[in-house]
Amino acid sequence: MSKKLTSREEDYSKWYNELVVKANLAENSGVRGCMVIKPYGYAIWEKMQAQLDKMFKETGHENAYFPLFVPKSLFEAEEKNAEGFAKECAVVTHYRLKGDEENKGKLIVDPEAKLEEELVVRPTSEAIIWNTYRNWIESYRDLPILVNQWANVVRWEMRTRLFLRTAEFLWQEGHTAHSTKEEAIQETEQMMNVYATFAEEFMAVPVVKGIKTEAERFAGADETYCIEALMQDGKALQAGTSHFLGQNFAKAFDVKYTTKEGKQEYVWATSWGVSTRLIGALIMMHSDDNGLVLPPKLAPIQLVVVPIYKGVDQLELIREYITPYLEELRAKGVSVKFDDRDTHKPGWKFNEYELKGVPVRVAIGKRDMENGTVELARRDTLTKESIQIADLTATVERLLVEIQENVYNKAFEYRKTHITEVDTFDAFKEVLEGKGGFVSAHWDGTTETEEKIQDLTKATIRCIPLDAKEEEGVCVFTGKPSKKRVLFAKAY
Amino acid sequence: MSKKLTSREEDYSKWYNELVVKANLAENSGVRGCMVIKPYGYAIWEKMQAQLDKMFKETGHENAYFPLFVPKSLFEAEEKNAEGFAKECAVVTHYRLKGDEENKGKLIVDPEAKLEEELVVRPTSEAIIWNTYRNWIESYRDLPILVNQWANVVRWEMRTRLFLRTAEFLWQEGHTAHSTKEEAIQETEQMMNVYATFAEEFMAVPVVKGIKTEAERFAGADETYCIEALMQDGKALQAGTSHFLGQNFAKAFDVKYTTKEGKQEYVWATSWGVSTRLIGALIMMHSDDNGLVLPPKLAPIQLVVVPIYKGVDQLELIREYITPYLEELRAKGVSVKFDDRDTHKPGWKFNEYELKGVPVRVAIGKRDMENGTVELARRDTLTKESIQIADLTATVERLLVEIQENVYNKAFEYRKTHITEVDTFDAFKEVLEGKGGFVSAHWDGTTETEEKIQDLTKATIRCIPLDAKEEEGVCVFTGKPSKKRVLFAKAY
Ligand SMILES: [Zn+2]
Ligand SMILES: [Zn+2]
Repeated sequence: MSKKLTSREEDYSKWYNELVVKANLAENSGVRGCMVIKPYGYAIWEKMQAQLDKMFKETGHENAYFPLFVPKSLFEAEEKNAEGFAKECAVVTHYRLKGDEENKGKLIVDPEAKLEEELVVRPTSEAIIWNTYRNWIESYRDLPILVNQWANVVRWEMRTRLFLRTAEFLWQEGHTAHSTKEEAIQETEQMMNVYATFAEEFMAVPVVKGIKTEAERFAGADETYCIEALMQDGKALQAGTSHFLGQNFAKAFDVKYTTKEGKQEYVWATSWGVSTRLIGALIMMHSDDNGLVLPPKLAPIQLVVVPIYKGVDQLELIREYITPYLEELRAKGVSVKFDDRDTHKPGWKFNEYELKGVPVRVAIGKRDMENGTVELARRDTLTKESIQIADLTATVERLLVEIQENVYNKAFEYRKTHITEVDTFDAFKEVLEGKGGFVSAHWDGTTETEEKIQDLTKATIRCIPLDAKEEEGVCVFTGKPSKKRVLFAKAY
Repeated sequence: MSKKLTSREEDYSKWYNELVVKANLAENSGVRGCMVIKPYGYAIWEKMQAQLDKMFKETGHENAYFPLFVPKSLFEAEEKNAEGFAKECAVVTHYRLKGDEENKGKLIVDPEAKLEEELVVRPTSEAIIWNTYRNWIESYRDLPILVNQWANVVRWEMRTRLFLRTAEFLWQEGHTAHSTKEEAIQETEQMMNVYATFAEEFMAVPVVKGIKTEAERFAGADETYCIEALMQDGKALQAGTSHFLGQNFAKAFDVKYTTKEGKQEYVWATSWGVSTRLIGALIMMHSDDNGLVLPPKLAPIQLVVVPIYKGVDQLELIREYITPYLEELRAKGVSVKFDDRDTHKPGWKFNEYELKGVPVRVAIGKRDMENGTVELARRDTLTKESIQIADLTATVERLLVEIQENVYNKAFEYRKTHITEVDTFDAFKEVLEGKGGFVSAHWDGTTETEEKIQDLTKATIRCIPLDAKEEEGVCVFTGKPSKKRVLFAKAY
């Protein structure tokens, strides 16, 4: 807390890393590419989990748990999926260590404990799950299966960043099985919509719903739906994906069902996931040079009270003065902290809660008690006001709603001014190098053009927006005809 | 559901395995020793997690998340701990697969992607956590650290059983750091007490609190506290452990703090955990030859309603008849299912919910509606009664309390009659081979005697009960003097 954060203008990337560490959200661990999620960061994840889990259950899903390890022979069964993840797999080859005879107190891998078949640490669970579903599904009566799993996964990334890209991360992965293509597509779209609602209403992050191009599609999917957000530095961030897997996994794992008419058909599949990456998006979206700004709905502490006192007697008077109001707020579901630590000064605490993004802060000193007031500060606007203590409950409740709306509106305004339509490749490059954000442009629909544009500009097609209008145009790069604009951006 | 369970008398072990699979709790997976926890089994785990998590937070703990992988050099730092787990470690040695040139479509481990340092998949997280705590702790102001983690762990067990012993399992592990020995011991005892309260009040499983002998202690602990339960077949099951780790990990990872007086001291540690093994204990404790019996506080469905109807019209009448009561019960926090599936007959459903241990079942047919009644069945006693529908809410509420008490009392009575004091080794063996249960006997305090008794009888010392009376006696095996009885049993 002693030193200020690097400002966003100075070095956005450094600002982010410092913020994550200083606000006690996460840190790098002794294991390459793996992070430690610290209690304050994990508390945000718990809030996200609770809300998402509720939404999953309301849409008929149940949780289950499948093994961490995928035997290599199962892993390779769906070829595209295997190919897509093979390059970044942690592989277990042995099941025992033994004492090193040449180096007392040290251990070595026991060569006699080599596994007959290597185990892949799951980078995603389609393979192990569809191998299981084969035994769960006989007839149409067994469908749909609507299952979700909260788990850790490992993808051996070479360049990692706290929350945004780590070798191990936490996520949820939904895996559903359906008797018809239509029902599976409906499920895929439903879950994309659940993610969009969560992002907008809880994270206060506006998102574009769309579908991925073939090049950006999930390995093994027929179609990938996504929600894309725009960070403050003009780079896009994929916040969630929902995949229509067709019958690819059913065919790879021979999962058939008997229809009402007695025929044997392959089962249709979806999978969908969001991860601790969302915490990265949340941080980047709203925070400022003073630290984190959290939307109230996901803030572990929504209101903090800092007493300004000399001696224990005054502290107890302040506690008595405020406690009835705090109890009232807690009864209304507001999470409240009364910070009575005597190890730190009020000014230090103010900075700390600013850094940690607590939405509303109340300070109370001797004069406040005499006047029947408290001093109230808003984290999003950094404004302060003195209010009557009798109004505290109502004011805090109103503010939490207002702050949630305000951070969303601010993010929405930013995004609105950072979707730029361009019709020439020069304009395309100019926008990317200048203001950044989403570039809305015509594209000829080929992977070849997509790759060339990426090589030249580092921008990828983030999605083909679901609400893209039919419009006659020509590809910004090749001049070939196009019927729809797609969104390009540099991305996390 | 088609076939009856093997009875407990016929084959207790087979009964258990069949019950777990038929009640849709869990099944073996395609990965040796790893289970799939199915939605109904996972729903029980979620209930357990919610309650335990609440109790951990009420005692001041926060959740965090630490890496799945432990670099070998960290793993081996605390020697006893390393030695204790080395023989059952899954080890990651490579981070990439590649196409097999000789076998198209197949993958092989890429020999060029060998890790410089092998990674152990965590069997427990003391090493990775204490390596992290070193950077979190400078002075007494940073203590205590009260952190818990919900995670998966892997121990390469050779003989596995669903829930009771699996290569991968889910658990929570608390890891705390303290400035004094006394505070750490208090924490260790507190968490043992939290576990005991949870087992008795929620799982309805009576437990003995005690400490482990040196031979049974956690590898790296100075003292292991435990709670021990007794299953219906007379075998004991360790349901939770809480370890006082002394300064062992602080010394291995060089974690010191500055005292108020400015001195440098090593930090004191505890760790404590319970796992999905508790689900195994819950199943074994209360269930019968008809299936699962669940204590209401952990039952995913507390009340199921089975309508007995001909045609959709009658179904809708029944729904109208019962809905106001179900809404009332839901508002009171009772989890209610109205099973309106037309794919199965009522009799089939009755068997299914009996198998799944739903505490209270209500059946409603045409005549019930005419009489203003419902038929109500209790899972624990298998009794039925007809009651006025106006009394439904109050009756269900009362029954849920009664059933919770009844299953606890039954378990408590069983245990009471299965703790047998013996004073000779002949009597010791007779009890073990006959009625089973805990054998309370004097022991000379040596590991040697403990091992000899185990070799001869397969019984281990489950614990030295905390409430053991001081009493002059002689070891049941060696005749040497002893001051306390300890509890022996065969165990899971
Ligand atoms: Zn701008
Ligand atoms: Zn008996």
